Amino acid sequence: MAGASSRGGAVRFEPRNPAWEERSREIFERQSFMRMIGARIARLEPGACDVALAYRDDLCQQNVYLHGGAITSIADTSCGVAASTLMPESAGVLTVEFKYNMMAPAAGEQFVARGRVVRPGRTLTVVESFVYAVKDGAESEIGRMLATMMFLEGKGDMQGTAA
Amino acid sequence: MAGASSRGGAVRFEPRNPAWEERSREIFERQSFMRMIGARIARLEPGACDVALAYRDDLCQQNVYLHGGAITSIADTSCGVAASTLMPESAGVLTVEFKYNMMAPAAGEQFVARGRVVRPGRTLTVVESFVYAVKDGAESEIGRMLATMMFLEGKGDMQGTAA
Amino acid sequence: MAGASSRGGAVRFEPRNPAWEERSREIFERQSFMRMIGARIARLEPGACDVALAYRDDLCQQNVYLHGGAITSIADTSCGVAASTLMPESAGVLTVEFKYNMMAPAAGEQFVARGRVVRPGRTLTVVESFVYAVKDGAESEIGRMLATMMFLEGKGDMQGTAA
Amino acid sequence: MAGASSRGGAVRFEPRNPAWEERSREIFERQSFMRMIGARIARLEPGACDVALAYRDDLCQQNVYLHGGAITSIADTSCGVAASTLMPESAGVLTVEFKYNMMAPAAGEQFVARGRVVRPGRTLTVVESFVYAVKDGAESEIGRMLATMMFLEGKGDMQGTAA
Repeated sequence: MAGASSRGGAVRFEPRNPAWEERSREIFERQSFMRMIGARIARLEPGACDVALAYRDDLCQQNVYLHGGAITSIADTSCGVAASTLMPESAGVLTVEFKYNMMAPAAGEQFVARGRVVRPGRTLTVVESFVYAVKDGAESEIGRMLATMMFLEGKGDMQGTAA
Repeated sequence: MAGASSRGGAVRFEPRNPAWEERSREIFERQSFMRMIGARIARLEPGACDVALAYRDDLCQQNVYLHGGAITSIADTSCGVAASTLMPESAGVLTVEFKYNMMAPAAGEQFVARGRVVRPGRTLTVVESFVYAVKDGAESEIGRMLATMMFLEGKGDMQGTAA
Repeated sequence: MAGASSRGGAVRFEPRNPAWEERSREIFERQSFMRMIGARIARLEPGACDVALAYRDDLCQQNVYLHGGAITSIADTSCGVAASTLMPESAGVLTVEFKYNMMAPAAGEQFVARGRVVRPGRTLTVVESFVYAVKDGAESEIGRMLATMMFLEGKGDMQGTAA
Repeated sequence: MAGASSRGGAVRFEPRNPAWEERSREIFERQSFMRMIGARIARLEPGACDVALAYRDDLCQQNVYLHGGAITSIADTSCGVAASTLMPESAGVLTVEFKYNMMAPAAGEQFVARGRVVRPGRTLTVVESFVYAVKDGAESEIGRMLATMMFLEGKGDMQGTAA
């Protein structure tokens, strides 16, 4: 099981899979939806994943802001990939549920969802994602997600089935 | 305020805006994200909106299923548009928050999110969306959303600002 | 695994444990918090549990209504006990998470939370609870919960450990 | 509207009501449910409220741990009271919805729910509550709540109606 150690105040998570980085990046790369909307991984560390997305006018809702669905998609992925950094080699990750509070309109040039593992577990992992809009170089928080992810054993990379 | 009347067991909602149907369709049509992923309104009645989406291989996650974000996007829109059928002419609708339980992988040829107003209100509306996958003509429930929508006065059609 | 069969429109769940009713009632009876607030099981069937609670003036919030916490406690228990009717003899049940929308103040003489299994599973079960206030014999919906419950193997009755 | 200023990294909220502390403590004191379970305010500052609760064997679930409902009750109250520190004198506060992830069993001698305003607003306030169990002097996080609170104008102290 992934352990968490505390050093200088910050919690450090220890991955169970030596090839955790390659595995997590591969999970993201296989998400055609992320590629299609133009999202990318901006940061990846044990227990943490930032997914960034540039404003595009085909990703909007009825006004000029980005659709809440585009925002929650990068938040959900940031949570799943963050959780995946701590899973065993033989497992896959899937979303059990998530809840998202939209705190401000998605207005900006760039958006970033910062997924941070709160509670690692053998089966279930609780993750929180903090979503920001970037405008003229300044960040403002636009939403927050609290999510539950699940590891499924026997659903590793090579099977190509439901992660 | 929109009223609800009961006839033969089913709750009927009464829109406050005589032009409710045109207004709600216009809200959906202005969502470029919905157009981009290929979603469409399959049903629209006071307090109810079904949003349908066909499987497409650029909307997927790391396996062959549709990305949870694509699914929750149509669920969120089904809730917002359903709520919008009951709002005053002068108002706009926005999502306060939503929670989504993924109950089965999004496997199928078509997907439909059925947004149904639970509790109409002057400011806040509670909506639930029931999401189904359609495969070989048979439907199976793949997820459920419980959401809170908000009306903002003075954000009507013509202003073109945040709804 | 508990199966679900459809007959005449309603879904019927089949318990895995022949002694399901005794097990589920025992889970409720062992909840000292339920006894302390005066709650009781009003209905128990495979996949369904109603928990009822009478108004009491030591269960209130800053006005005269029942505290949201008292209401969500019976909703949470209705979900857990409903899920428990479908679990194996060897397992225990616990709450993973829940989300509750408060739709109206908890005003009334009686309150009832109707927990209904939405999606039974081997490990996770999705349950919804519909909460009503009863006043002068008439019911009105005051809240709705969407919850995820988990079965833990090896935590059966006799061990007396975390269910 | 309550403002937030940043000084040395931490966000400071500025209350709108000069008598905010008295008002918020009064809201808590009027919650008979909090008194009945033995809860108390452990900390109160603009945008922050800690509610503490001692273990008691009539607050439990089917095992020896505190019932999730008792824990979510103090978490909900910590969110509502934290939000109330930033509301106008003329308003009252109520819970719109909350979502709670149970991350570990509620085992300990004491429990504390730390409600922290995330996003203050004119009508809606997003609050997060971090719940800990205290055992042998050491704290461990057992749950997290993400909640939406609402201010209702014209529901101030003296009316004695729904806050």
